[in-house]
Order: sequence, then C-alpha cells, then structure tokens
Amino acid sequence: MARYRLTIEYDGTNFAGWQKQDDALTIQSRITFAVHQFCGEIVTVNGAGRTDAGVHATGQVAHIDLKHTWPSDTVRDAVNNHLRPDPISILNVCKVTEKFDARFSATKRHYLYRIENRRAPLTLDQLRAWQVAVPLNAKHMHNAAQSLVGHHDFTTFRSSHCQAKSPVKTLDAITVIQRDNIIIVTTSARSFMHRQVRSIVGSLKLVGEGKWSQDEIAERLAACDRAACGVVAPSHGLYLSQVDY
Amino acid sequence: MARYRLTIEYDGTNFAGWQKQDDALTIQSRITFAVHQFCGEIVTVNGAGRTDAGVHATGQVAHIDLKHTWPSDTVRDAVNNHLRPDPISILNVCKVTEKFDARFSATKRHYLYRIENRRAPLTLDQLRAWQVAVPLNAKHMHNAAQSLVGHHDFTTFRSSHCQAKSPVKTLDAITVIQRDNIIIVTTSARSFMHRQVRSIVGSLKLVGEGKWSQDEIAERLAACDRAACGVVAPSHGLYLSQVDY
Repeated sequence: MARYRLTIEYDGTNFAGWQKQDDALTIQSRITFAVHQFCGEIVTVNGAGRTDAGVHATGQVAHIDLKHTWPSDTVRDAVNNHLRPDPISILNVCKVTEKFDARFSATKRHYLYRIENRRAPLTLDQLRAWQVAVPLNAKHMHNAAQSLVGHHDFTTFRSSHCQAKSPVKTLDAITVIQRDNIIIVTTSARSFMHRQVRSIVGSLKLVGEGKWSQDEIAERLAACDRAACGVVAPSHGLYLSQVDY
Repeated sequence: MARYRLTIEYDGTNFAGWQKQDDALTIQSRITFAVHQFCGEIVTVNGAGRTDAGVHATGQVAHIDLKHTWPSDTVRDAVNNHLRPDPISILNVCKVTEKFDARFSATKRHYLYRIENRRAPLTLDQLRAWQVAVPLNAKHMHNAAQSLVGHHDFTTFRSSHCQAKSPVKTLDAITVIQRDNIIIVTTSARSFMHRQVRSIVGSLKLVGEGKWSQDEIAERLAACDRAACGVVAPSHGLYLSQVDY
C-alpha cells in the first residue's frame, strides 16, 4: 500500500462543496470517481478542509491510499485526465508515510477572501469574488479584525449548524489589504469552524462601509451570540489557499 | 446630442468578438441592444479595438451619441442593468466633446497576454489564460521580443486575412515577466493588426521552450513572410487592457 498527498485546485461554483453527499455532485466524490477510473480502486479522499458549496480552493490538500504503487507524476496526470473537463485539478502529488493525515496532521489552514469594491458588475470575476458597490475602508477593516487574533470563543462568528465540540479556537492571523478596487482578506488558524471566515468577512464589510465602528467587532465577539454576527459573506469570494503540515 | 465615452470590461468567451455580425452574438451588438432598452435610441457603439472571438477586455473604450442628455452615472448604471446577466460591464462613463472618437483619437492601445506555465489543467482560469505544460524561459522570451520594438514590416506576425492597408507598424513596447507559474506579455502600440499579438506570443512561446533561438524572432520578422510565423496563441489568453488618448 502507498499513501499519496494531493494538492488540489478547484472552481467550486457548480459543486455542492467538498464533502461526499448521497444526492449531489461534490469535489470529493468527483475525485474518488476519477481515481477509480484511473486504477480501479475505490478510495477515500481524505481532505484537509470541508469547503462549502461555491467555495474555491487553490491549495486544498488530501491523501489517498492505493494498493498498487505508482510514480507520483503518473497519479497526478492520470487523475487529471479523468477529471476533465471538470474544473478540478491535481496540482501536485507526492508519496508520504502512513503517519501523514491530510486532516489531522495539518498545523495551519489559510483562507483568502476576495472582495471587488466597485459599482460595475463583475465579468471575468463573476462567482470568483464578492462585488461590493458601497465604498469600503480597508484600513478600518484591518484594524477592527485584529481584535479577533488569539484564543477566543467564536460563537458569534460560526454557523448555528457548526458541529465543532467547542466554539473556542485560536485565530493566528488576519489581514485586510487593498490594491486598486480589490480587497483581500487573508486568515490563518490551525482549524476553522463552519462559516467562520465568511461570518468574519461579512461583519468586517459592515465596518468597512461605516455601519459598524472599528470597536464593534471586539464587542460582537465578546457577546458570544450568533445573533450578534453581521451578514455572512457569499461563498464565491472564498478560497482555501494553503494547508501547512 | 451628447457624446459619451464608455470604458468596458468583458469576458469574451461566449461572444463572436467585438464587431457586429448578422448571425452571431457580439459585444458590440449586445451593448447596442442594452442602450436601446435603456433609452429607446438605436446607436452605433464605436469601439477602439475589434477584439476577436474569445478575447477579453479589461479596458476597451467606445463612444456613443445620444439625442437625450443623461447624467454619466445614469448611463453607466442603466446600461449595466440591461446587460445583466451577460459578462459585459460598463466600468465608467464620461461626457466628451464631438472631437473625441474612440477609434481614431486613440494614441496607444495596450494588450496583455496571460500564460499559465504548469502541467496541471486550469480550473479557475479556464478560458482566461493559455496553459502551457512545457517549461518556458520568460527571460529568453523577453530578450527575443525586444527585436520587435520599433518601426517594422510585421507581415510575418499578422493574419493573412488582415485588412490593414500596410503591414508596416510601430511597436512601442513589449515585455515578458514571470511571477510563479504565470507569464504575462504586455505590449503597446498606436494600433495593432489582425492577430498580431497572438502571432507574436505564439512565436515567443517557441523561444521560451527552446525550439527557437533568441535571435530567431528577429530573423522571422525580417523574412516578412506569414509562413515564418510560429503558432498563433489561443484567443482566451488575450486581454485588451487599456486605450490611451
């Protein structure tokens, strides 16, 4: 048996998220099918992060176990061949030991959220960014976001459907930078809860447009109340960009 | 009567290019239709550059004449409203004098060509970049390209269907830069001939992979022979990025 680590990119638009479902097309099931077409084996594709429907990835990581041992590049090229023409691409494959687990060995996950702050509708970036017409102050968003860094109860900023045992998590970093009309929010943590990044970004947007003060993020966090969350940013601006081990 | 200058962005994938055609959907005809829906007037949308099918724009410019005078922002928002859900967006509208002509007043046109130099198929950038699997040397491409700058007979690098009276044009600048796996070719001139940028990029790709020497671009240019052109790069990597006046 050989274990392979896969680095995966996808356009999540037309998929019902990462996680396998009985009645919907997901990234995980699509890759499982491609691996089966390649080598006849039915594997579990163990992903590092369960992205929601519409969420993209430029650096998702997964591992699979194959009974037969193949060169890593063969696995990459053959699986990609069977993924065509769907917008899922295996960027890289490498052999790893059985100690490696894409989900449990991850030490840090990085997400990127893309906002296009302009009045005109998007064209090339349709469903790849959140278009916000009202002018946003990215510096205010960045300043407000710093109160989230550290060890906190994130009840305000997680979905009421979140299945994590505890709402207490450590956020390692969050930055908001602007270049021309594009505002990028990047955030890193060992793990995130369901809809945590989108809940944070949607609330920061209210700071950016001046509806909330820069102190309000800290106050809402302290409330530990889901009802204190602002809007939830749409899924199509979110990217799982990197997983560290 | 009032003349308006429009700055336009579009995803050219599903259009038969800019220029109006009897039996195909084009960017120009789609905007003409949206203006008519907005104000009832049938206008000519005079564009600065006639992009081919599949070619994108982030900074196309056009002018229209309207009998009724509207605030510029009203024109932008109303036309955008009638362009939905098609991936064409009016970024900016401003009133100009009748001396302004989007095509004939242009002093410089800028095109950008995007190559993704990687083995894995594209996902988020499908039909937005040219995926080239064989490793390219961007420095060699840049060096070779410099022989094209200046006043030359560009017969080698224009389509045999090009309708320009003379093949002699001045190329003001061309640069090839690489960041990670992305190679960007930018090029500027008062005007370009049919398929000129794509013919140049396709030939530079042969230099990048080492099939042609860095001197070969100059030799092929000097041949003044369309048969001396390399491959023509695909339309979906090309963007009309800016027009100067």
